[in-house]
Amino acid sequence: MRYELYYWPGIQGRGEFVRLALEEAGADYLDVARQGNPETGIKKMMRLMQNKKSACPPFAPPFLRAGKRVIGQTANILLYLGPRIGLSPRAEPKQIWVHQLQLTIADFVTEIHDVHHPIAGSLYYRDQKLEAKRRAGHFIKERIPKFLDYFENVLVSNSKAGPWMLGRAFSYVDLSMFQTIAGLNYAFPKRMKKLGSKYSRLATLHDKVAARPNIAAYLASDRRLAFNDNGIFRHYPELDN
Amino acid sequence: MRYELYYWPGIQGRGEFVRLALEEAGADYLDVARQGNPETGIKKMMRLMQNKKSACPPFAPPFLRAGKRVIGQTANILLYLGPRIGLSPRAEPKQIWVHQLQLTIADFVTEIHDVHHPIAGSLYYRDQKLEAKRRAGHFIKERIPKFLDYFENVLVSNSKAGPWMLGRAFSYVDLSMFQTIAGLNYAFPKRMKKLGSKYSRLATLHDKVAARPNIAAYLASDRRLAFNDNGIFRHYPELDN
Repeated sequence: MRYELYYWPGIQGRGEFVRLALEEAGADYLDVARQGNPETGIKKMMRLMQNKKSACPPFAPPFLRAGKRVIGQTANILLYLGPRIGLSPRAEPKQIWVHQLQLTIADFVTEIHDVHHPIAGSLYYRDQKLEAKRRAGHFIKERIPKFLDYFENVLVSNSKAGPWMLGRAFSYVDLSMFQTIAGLNYAFPKRMKKLGSKYSRLATLHDKVAARPNIAAYLASDRRLAFNDNGIFRHYPELDN
Repeated sequence: MRYELYYWPGIQGRGEFVRLALEEAGADYLDVARQGNPETGIKKMMRLMQNKKSACPPFAPPFLRAGKRVIGQTANILLYLGPRIGLSPRAEPKQIWVHQLQLTIADFVTEIHDVHHPIAGSLYYRDQKLEAKRRAGHFIKERIPKFLDYFENVLVSNSKAGPWMLGRAFSYVDLSMFQTIAGLNYAFPKRMKKLGSKYSRLATLHDKVAARPNIAAYLASDRRLAFNDNGIFRHYPELDN
């Protein structure tokens, strides 16, 4: 089956967590708004979202079309895709656990986004910069350690079995963890450098994912968008302390 | 099986979405920090979260103990419980769709919380009141309609089959939708009154859920905590316009 991924063409955003899974699996997929005409792709995306007759409309991008099904919510797309493209274990308890980790990453990603947008998604960063600075102070001191301590500890607990979040079995959550660390390194280089050695297993996981053949090829291709200041992970030096 | 629910004893919070499902199903469950000594319950909860030897530790409450399994993330707990307590359809595509709706409610709930805490969860409301006022203006004008339009439209699309989010089949997402509407009515009474007739199907769903025998009995019992100003849904008149 050829999957169709619907997402904004100019940013990695939440679509990237799905792209990484499709790329790692070597799945046949069309990135609708990026391959072909972006305007046409975006129009098609909006039509699917705003189709009042659909019984199952997605609330927002990214969403995935798989045959007749349209599936939204990043973590939900990965829950659906995981067993189908060999990126999650088959046993139900493990699937629920991988998904639980993915949802915790999703919570972290929302907080990372809201550091530069604490007031409203509809405002520019420059119009909420003061509030962003205040939020960033708390985020850096309280939330980065809270989440990274947790994820590092999951790696430690499973380290006898292997370097991945599940120990021996590689899964889509390793790709999302890679993306989160890569994004933090881009957005908060000063802070991440300070913390570096504290989260050595997360750093190793990041490097090991980047070196997987399909991911390395993807990262070197023009299918991988660069981080930029329209996405979730933004580098504003005034927020990085 | 007797389920154990771990959550803070003084607020409805995210635990309430799980409680409503357990109550509707008439499931055998222990609300650990509320039945028995709250201090002992909270200690037990913290121990489970901070157990460095656990391969699958939860990041935060609520979490559910089901035999040997410990399952975290509200939407994930409902994904697990749904088919086991008769509150989600058995077919996989429907399960994925119910979960997608639940995740969209979870996103909305996070935004509702962050209206009164736009800067940091570690600060009191009074220490971020100015920012909260600014965020509330955008939230009320932009986000409440965005989410409620979407959910109302899901009800409209499925209304030939029945009054629930899935049409004919009642599921845990109807309970969560009820809780969200109840919470908005508590936190933003002025605004919700203004919007009232626009979201008539959501209002009907709210009333129908409240009238279900097990839910009505639960809401009338002392197991249902009142809304209060420590939870997700808080009534601060200055934020309700």
